[in-house]
Amino acid sequence: MNFENCFPLWNDLNTAQKKIISDNLITQYVKKGTIIHNGNLDCTGLLLVKSGQLRTYMLSDEGREITLYRLFDMDMCLLSASCIIRSIQFEVTIEAEKDTDLWIIPAEIYKGIMKESAPVANYTNELMATRFSDVMGLIEQIIPEKDPASTDTLYRIAGFMDQAMAGFFETYQAMTEEELAEHRYQRFRRM
Amino acid sequence: MNFENCFPLWNDLNTAQKKIISDNLITQYVKKGTIIHNGNLDCTGLLLVKSGQLRTYMLSDEGREITLYRLFDMDMCLLSASCIIRSIQFEVTIEAEKDTDLWIIPAEIYKGIMKESAPVANYTNELMATRFSDVMGLIEQIIPEKDPASTDTLYRIAGFMDQAMAGFFETYQAMTEEELAEHRYQRFRRM
Repeated sequence: MNFENCFPLWNDLNTAQKKIISDNLITQYVKKGTIIHNGNLDCTGLLLVKSGQLRTYMLSDEGREITLYRLFDMDMCLLSASCIIRSIQFEVTIEAEKDTDLWIIPAEIYKGIMKESAPVANYTNELMATRFSDVMGLIEQIIPEKDPASTDTLYRIAGFMDQAMAGFFETYQAMTEEELAEHRYQRFRRM
Repeated sequence: MNFENCFPLWNDLNTAQKKIISDNLITQYVKKGTIIHNGNLDCTGLLLVKSGQLRTYMLSDEGREITLYRLFDMDMCLLSASCIIRSIQFEVTIEAEKDTDLWIIPAEIYKGIMKESAPVANYTNELMATRFSDVMGLIEQIIPEKDPASTDTLYRIAGFMDQAMAGFFETYQAMTEEELAEHRYQRFRRM
């Protein structure tokens, strides 16, 4: 699995652009739990997840983490290069939720190509729109449910429960017995 | 006040692009209360507010309106042309909050230029990032405050009150006595 086959824009680049990306591409392995990007302090670059899992979250004033979205194999991460778009006026943290292999295009390199290439700029647009859509979906969930449970709201509530149960099984079925025990121990310690 | 002076991208366009925009530009006057854009049903185009005020909101499942942001004189509205970016997977409604004069670049015209022009695509990126930032700011507000009022949280709470009061005065000082009376009447009718 090489970068050229995984990077969706590769065929839209000219020879010089391909060369500058190849010459500056970084391959990185990060262990589960590593903070890859932290607010506006750093501007790593555009990430392509080779394998693993990233979680992007924001911190509320009270220090609560609000998960915005997760990235999986072959997903691109734009907010780790937020400095390339001036109008991104918010800070997020990106954490490896599993051991993760990454390709990184340094921010300055990507920015240079984006400024001159319409296909790259348009692709960046689509990437941002995808994350924007994720966050809009989140707002719908945050908005408090006003209707009490009734026969009218039964199917909608059952739908939420269904989703939550699917998420629960997805998380916990992947764990070994030891991991589950440790997780439960940590959870009760925090209570 | 003509379009060429107000459209920030004008000088980045080539002659052919300027001509196609000029030939297809729509000037529109909309009365306060008009719905300009409604979900994915229509894809009007890129709006430039000549004068007036627009409000962009989403509807929750329960029919509640959640205001995402407002646009004022010389602001550009991208989500009224959401069909030009495939990955925008959410629906918003845009309403004229005051009598408003608009310039509209039809969606297909803008899309055609954006596909071939890096400056236009990058500008679109900045526009989307601005709205994305607005929405991220909103999430921070929606997140419920967990700490009770105390001397520790006094200044933060006072800050919120200060903001809310400034917003209140901005809204209501602009109203005539008749408008205030009507507004209050409508408000109590809905209680």
